[in-house]
Amino acid sequence: MQLESDRVAWHSSKVSKQSRQLSNGHGSCVLWFTGLSGSGKSTLAAELELALHELNCKSYVLDGDNLRLGLNRGLGFSQADRSENIRRIGETARLFVDAGFITLAAAITPYQADRELLRTRFGQDEFIEVYVRCAIEECERRDPKGLYRKARSGEIRQFTGISAPYEAPRHPELEINSEKVTVAESVSILLNYLRSRGCLPAEGKAGG
Amino acid sequence: MQLESDRVAWHSSKVSKQSRQLSNGHGSCVLWFTGLSGSGKSTLAAELELALHELNCKSYVLDGDNLRLGLNRGLGFSQADRSENIRRIGETARLFVDAGFITLAAAITPYQADRELLRTRFGQDEFIEVYVRCAIEECERRDPKGLYRKARSGEIRQFTGISAPYEAPRHPELEINSEKVTVAESVSILLNYLRSRGCLPAEGKAGG
Repeated sequence: MQLESDRVAWHSSKVSKQSRQLSNGHGSCVLWFTGLSGSGKSTLAAELELALHELNCKSYVLDGDNLRLGLNRGLGFSQADRSENIRRIGETARLFVDAGFITLAAAITPYQADRELLRTRFGQDEFIEVYVRCAIEECERRDPKGLYRKARSGEIRQFTGISAPYEAPRHPELEINSEKVTVAESVSILLNYLRSRGCLPAEGKAGG
Repeated sequence: MQLESDRVAWHSSKVSKQSRQLSNGHGSCVLWFTGLSGSGKSTLAAELELALHELNCKSYVLDGDNLRLGLNRGLGFSQADRSENIRRIGETARLFVDAGFITLAAAITPYQADRELLRTRFGQDEFIEVYVRCAIEECERRDPKGLYRKARSGEIRQFTGISAPYEAPRHPELEINSEKVTVAESVSILLNYLRSRGCLPAEGKAGG
């Protein structure tokens, strides 16, 4: 069997990432939200997306749950399937970063190896790991989708933190403790961080 | 084994597709370029992307070859793998349409069933099938990647038009004969079509 590379040629775009960023008036990158189920990743990503939209910045959330209903349909929760799930979200995020978006990926991403591999797929300074930290006791108390209850009863298996591992990030660019910081404060922290990295206009509105 | 739907909840975005379209100053949709290898799909998509960018419209090419080096790495050229390849490009295109882009998918997409399935994944008027027609003799004469030669010699297998089928579209929204129409003329036809569908601003530039 031949390799794909034998019959697949790269087609270059005539519109560069830099040209898109110039047109948008801001940089592009991915913020990768990792953390336990119920830690607040999706909520935070959705609020940041809204805040960026109101600043006229192009932003888009790639939500792990949502993608499991589309692009990643059919994948389960074994380590191999989780890795493939994350790999595909990462490859999609690359496309969005190339398209000029501040891309917000929200997915548990429990394995350190997967996160390290992700990082290699992006340019320097393009991959920003955001650890949404929350004690599992608090996640279980919140249990927004009733999943911890199902995991405890054995109704669902391979559940992160209960019956599957979560390897906490060692050196994330940002760590947000969702037990101590409100969503609004977290959005503010993230906007300031993006600004400090030169990804957002210093002031005023982007676009053009 | 539980279904994914048992443990995956949909997270709604606070930024609607309509709001993105309003911000961009144009609609979003997918133009799906189907046709034989060498018919001119990627070339046409790249030129249209550039023309749209110069009109300040958000556009992005999802090129089948390029995606086989990333998102779809590992998939081969059997009918099942081709269908999965197309399904993933389609799901990615859905995200880009949701994000407000005039999305340009360029992939052989040889099977009618796959194209019909794709259409069901988009809203009314969002999926525009563009058949890039070119006689196989002409594609083989062009042979831009040397693949027809390799297919004839047996060096590569399952090659569309030689050792795998191409089911020509029955009712594409547009058909472009790349033997008779130049790339520049084709771009003009596509821009006019998008304008007639209300996807582009009537005149002047979009954005804001």
